[in-house]
Amino acid sequence: MSETAASALGRFIAGSGWGAIPAAVRAEGVRTLLNHLGCGLGSTDDPQVRRLAAVLRPFSGAATATVVGQVERMDPMAASFVNAVAANLLDYDDTHLRTVIHPAAPVAPAVLALAETRGLPGSAVLHALLLGMEVECRIGNAVSPGHYDRGWHITATTGVFGAAAGCAKLLGLDAAGVAAALGIAASQSAGLVENLPNGAKNVGVGNAARNGLFAALLAEAGCDAAAASIEGRLGWARAMGDEPRVEEITEGLGERWEAARNTYKPYPAGIVFHAVIDAALALREELGGPAPAAITAVEVAGDTLLLARGDRGRVRIAGDQRVSIHHCAAIALQRGRAGVADFAEGALTDPVLDALRGRVRAVLDASLPRGAARVAVTLADGRRAETTVLHARGSAERPMSDADLDAKFRDNAALGGMADRAEAAIAAVRSLAVASDVSGLMALLRRSAG
Amino acid sequence: MSETAASALGRFIAGSGWGAIPAAVRAEGVRTLLNHLGCGLGSTDDPQVRRLAAVLRPFSGAATATVVGQVERMDPMAASFVNAVAANLLDYDDTHLRTVIHPAAPVAPAVLALAETRGLPGSAVLHALLLGMEVECRIGNAVSPGHYDRGWHITATTGVFGAAAGCAKLLGLDAAGVAAALGIAASQSAGLVENLPNGAKNVGVGNAARNGLFAALLAEAGCDAAAASIEGRLGWARAMGDEPRVEEITEGLGERWEAARNTYKPYPAGIVFHAVIDAALALREELGGPAPAAITAVEVAGDTLLLARGDRGRVRIAGDQRVSIHHCAAIALQRGRAGVADFAEGALTDPVLDALRGRVRAVLDASLPRGAARVAVTLADGRRAETTVLHARGSAERPMSDADLDAKFRDNAALGGMADRAEAAIAAVRSLAVASDVSGLMALLRRSAG
Repeated sequence: MSETAASALGRFIAGSGWGAIPAAVRAEGVRTLLNHLGCGLGSTDDPQVRRLAAVLRPFSGAATATVVGQVERMDPMAASFVNAVAANLLDYDDTHLRTVIHPAAPVAPAVLALAETRGLPGSAVLHALLLGMEVECRIGNAVSPGHYDRGWHITATTGVFGAAAGCAKLLGLDAAGVAAALGIAASQSAGLVENLPNGAKNVGVGNAARNGLFAALLAEAGCDAAAASIEGRLGWARAMGDEPRVEEITEGLGERWEAARNTYKPYPAGIVFHAVIDAALALREELGGPAPAAITAVEVAGDTLLLARGDRGRVRIAGDQRVSIHHCAAIALQRGRAGVADFAEGALTDPVLDALRGRVRAVLDASLPRGAARVAVTLADGRRAETTVLHARGSAERPMSDADLDAKFRDNAALGGMADRAEAAIAAVRSLAVASDVSGLMALLRRSAG
Repeated sequence: MSETAASALGRFIAGSGWGAIPAAVRAEGVRTLLNHLGCGLGSTDDPQVRRLAAVLRPFSGAATATVVGQVERMDPMAASFVNAVAANLLDYDDTHLRTVIHPAAPVAPAVLALAETRGLPGSAVLHALLLGMEVECRIGNAVSPGHYDRGWHITATTGVFGAAAGCAKLLGLDAAGVAAALGIAASQSAGLVENLPNGAKNVGVGNAARNGLFAALLAEAGCDAAAASIEGRLGWARAMGDEPRVEEITEGLGERWEAARNTYKPYPAGIVFHAVIDAALALREELGGPAPAAITAVEVAGDTLLLARGDRGRVRIAGDQRVSIHHCAAIALQRGRAGVADFAEGALTDPVLDALRGRVRAVLDASLPRGAARVAVTLADGRRAETTVLHARGSAERPMSDADLDAKFRDNAALGGMADRAEAAIAAVRSLAVASDVSGLMALLRRSAG
């Protein structure tokens, strides 16, 4: 049989050894996991997470897998679903910038739940997470940008492959078994951009984790799939509308790591708004923290993408604030920060903030590169300051430091009411590669009873 | 908010009363359910069904739903998955001819499992089944034939809408709730033609039932979806590659019933081969049941579709036999029947049958209409007979009678080792509309312990 995308990935994954993963790639796996678990902790009390968990609870079998921030465990498929939803809920998780895939949400919950259930070591989890992210980002590269533009929510549609690949590695499947898991994942790939503002989006992300694990378990039991499930004439990519660039999937496996290109957000807002926030924070500092009432005008300049996504002076629901130039500039100038609480319901009805949003004006400057922003602030006393941010914090050029990621984790743990666990959990993630199993880490992520 | 496909279907389903369903449509619902349950009984011992059930068992919560032909129940999502796979496994289930959707497999298991769990009456099950089939066939009409031709396994991709619609009705959701269930189903729609010969195909069909039920339960809990999830710019139909004909979904709801256009197969073979089998059976009778060795030549003529699908003299695996002109003609001439056993592994290695397959020749006759076949048989003694079948048994023009469906059910029950239950089960299905719940019927479908 000739080589297919699934068989090439199967050979790579089955043959991959932890010892051969470069140190820098391993380190990115740890950073990815820390960022992922923090995001999950931060949204564990969200009504949407609680609602989805409540629907699944009667359908959970043997409760062997931790649900982040909850007391009771669930079975590994149900736990994967809930943990994936929670991590992705606030648009605060990681980003593979070329595809805009959020890589960890579908993969990490599935490999953690499986490893917790089967008592597998921490290094196996990190290895499986990296391999799963590699598969989803490479498949995403092969069909981007047409795939997302057509209406496919790429985090969900490629995430199921990532979860299947990671879990297949944990199960020790051979090359043919991994390829079968990927083919079974192809027949479960789903998720629509049309549903992005709605709960149905969360269901797509949760299913990517749940069904990716299911695919690996089915392959382990001997269930098979077509050899060319991904690139065949009636296969995944073409059914979804794209002629895939298969070489993006198969070339340089083990040499060039897409998983190591992951980035992390300092702010729970759309990625193009981060430069706006950085610039506004810098100006607030430069101007000595002026009272909001003293700010008479704010002008934010950016490229067409920034304007198309964010020229949104009126914010009606909390989610609007994450994609509003006006809110992002105003919150940074008013509060000197832009954390989860600053994008929550409460920020909608703060009259001082609302007035400040009303004095922000968005203007096009096509000379600015994508991801950049120029902000100018004028005060009542006549002073004016202006700054341009070309690369926002968290971008590939200015990555979040390990200390930044620790601080973000602490903030998220506090939001989830688990501040007291933060340092121990950070230490457990940072030492996961030498842990004999994941039970210690997972216990730190559960809420205490009572 | 303006009318969308989901909101129109939501209004129709929420407002539909059992009393307003025409008697002929109700009767087709009973026939569909009987045919469906028989197909499930017939394949309950298949290794693929047992394998999938074994994978899901540790992930089953409260075991309130019957798995057809098994002793132990499972939770409603797991039972829906297994029962959908079993009913569809042998390509012996029902067919909506315009779309080639097999309507019952994704819908009936989900509504039965939910009704069994919640103690709902038999009429509610039939009502939900009909509404679910109506939704999946209408959505299929709106995107056919491009949808299947592009690589989407339409039974799975539209089946999830049918299961969601039927379960939403059983849960008593209002119009907005039904619409939300359909939108959540859209973000779970998946299944690829590339995977058709493989186990991954069964997973797609099982998921349609399982995830359709999940969608309805999520909507019941308040999870929402985009208004234009089906036909929106970034919604289901366009992401999958097709500009939908929305009027096919929304026009004449409650007046024109696609669900009543369901058809049932007398033979477990591809639908275009049924005329070949009918003609060969008639010739065998006409020639007085000649010994296979006495048959020197068989010529089968048909249109391009028949030749493209079935000019397959060599059969390597059991599944090849279902789509082989040579096998279908030979088995009918040799055995005077074409049942499940006649397409199983054993038929591959029968030397007399193999020799007879070798004397069958397929020829194109473009003047024959789709679905027709002309068969000519020459004997060693020089006799020759020829017959043409324009409409096969089971087609819309020659529907299976109620007695035919009862006989098919008995055959399937015997294959599943449950011949002793057949009459009682048939009676329970035929009187389901007046049953206060489905527990009696479901108990008849379970295997006795020990």
